[in-house]
Amino acid sequence: MNNKYDTRAKEINSLLCVGLDSDFAKLPEKFKAMEFPQFEFNKWIIDQTAEYTASFKANSAFYEARGDQGLRELKMTIDYINQNHPTIFTILDAKRADIGNTNNGYIQFAYEYLSFDSVTLHPYLGREAIDPFLYRTDKTSIILCRTSNPGARDFQDLIVDGKMVYEIVAEKVSTEWNTNNNCMLVVGATYPEEMKKIRSIVGDMTFLVPGIGAQGGSVEDVVKAGLNTKGLGLIIHSARGIIFAEDPKMEALKLRDEIRKYTA
Amino acid sequence: MNNKYDTRAKEINSLLCVGLDSDFAKLPEKFKAMEFPQFEFNKWIIDQTAEYTASFKANSAFYEARGDQGLRELKMTIDYINQNHPTIFTILDAKRADIGNTNNGYIQFAYEYLSFDSVTLHPYLGREAIDPFLYRTDKTSIILCRTSNPGARDFQDLIVDGKMVYEIVAEKVSTEWNTNNNCMLVVGATYPEEMKKIRSIVGDMTFLVPGIGAQGGSVEDVVKAGLNTKGLGLIIHSARGIIFAEDPKMEALKLRDEIRKYTA
Repeated sequence: MNNKYDTRAKEINSLLCVGLDSDFAKLPEKFKAMEFPQFEFNKWIIDQTAEYTASFKANSAFYEARGDQGLRELKMTIDYINQNHPTIFTILDAKRADIGNTNNGYIQFAYEYLSFDSVTLHPYLGREAIDPFLYRTDKTSIILCRTSNPGARDFQDLIVDGKMVYEIVAEKVSTEWNTNNNCMLVVGATYPEEMKKIRSIVGDMTFLVPGIGAQGGSVEDVVKAGLNTKGLGLIIHSARGIIFAEDPKMEALKLRDEIRKYTA
Repeated sequence: MNNKYDTRAKEINSLLCVGLDSDFAKLPEKFKAMEFPQFEFNKWIIDQTAEYTASFKANSAFYEARGDQGLRELKMTIDYINQNHPTIFTILDAKRADIGNTNNGYIQFAYEYLSFDSVTLHPYLGREAIDPFLYRTDKTSIILCRTSNPGARDFQDLIVDGKMVYEIVAEKVSTEWNTNNNCMLVVGATYPEEMKKIRSIVGDMTFLVPGIGAQGGSVEDVVKAGLNTKGLGLIIHSARGIIFAEDPKMEALKLRDEIRKYTA
């Protein structure tokens, strides 16, 4: 089992995750003009926020948008984090999942070419499909369970024998997929009632929680619904609200402190 | 509506799709030694098989495995196809789906940086999440419905009001997501009974059909279960069985002819 997140979160008393969703179009002009704009921007954000954050998450889409150049800058970013802040838990938000061995390509991408600690995964193809990820006991598989978007109910709320599909995902991950104790779940901040239910199903398993801020999720609701028995179990993610703020350092500190208010 | 696939399939009387699953580790040694091994191998396969194939599909995982270099060679590959065989329908098998605008990054990746005609997508986040793909009326969204892997039943066979989840995916895509007439479904060759059911739900919608050959699907079963009323509606995919054969051209011709035997 990989305890990196818990160790870091306890060490600095923070459940904050800063999202490096560094959309090229939204970068300040001075970074756009640089040779490696996404990397230079990330480096600045990392330097500003590292002391307050337990985790950095990068959404792959914003880098893939720029093709091979974007991937190179994503690699420079994760290398910079690992060299300068090796205790911070890192998440590649790539929402992958293919069948069987094809996943090995994505594993090489996330863990060899890049060297993230974890990757987000779609559950739709079933457990057998993502076994190659689950076998990586040195890494963490973060399964999409209850996503933060308004349309999440389309499939996730279908009712099977009195249970919703997202509850079944939570159950299966907790009882069948997590045999190596290296799974987490994505549970959106915008659905605190559902988060409470999922917490009751999966015990102390950690949730990656997107949806705070711009998407409308509340820190108080999330902490009340999702904290586990160890006073941990939440990776509370914010991207735009921090990285595109005038003072990212101050925003990271503010959010860390807001989380502390409810976890104390 | 994008008729490119139907037009090509009719023109050459072929429902074949050659899969450029060009895993670096499996390439012949002579290609491995080249500056752009995956591209050079693909170029050779494309030249050998283009006359028999209605579609080329590239699975992104095999390129991402090699990071920025792999992406560059994937780009060289799609550019080569578009320049030399502009009538062949191209599929980026990337199995993506994120929430709302984050998808724009993947759209830029698939359609701007690369210039594929279509991309495969996970349905788990619901329709609202993949709207940015559906709005691209010049492109085709191929939604995972019934995948070819043994573990597909985990979630796809859950029963909701007497219907299985994969049937509900088929229904929703057909009645709600396909308003721009630019959706297809992934339906594995390994589940012909399910394919028959899906055909009865979605009318003439086209299926991308992986799972022939190495995975055990039979051409006869697939054609009997899946052909639509126009004698089309199937993109029958084979990768390993063709590209790593001693004579890829001959294997492509053989599979095209086997398909013709049952479609005639």
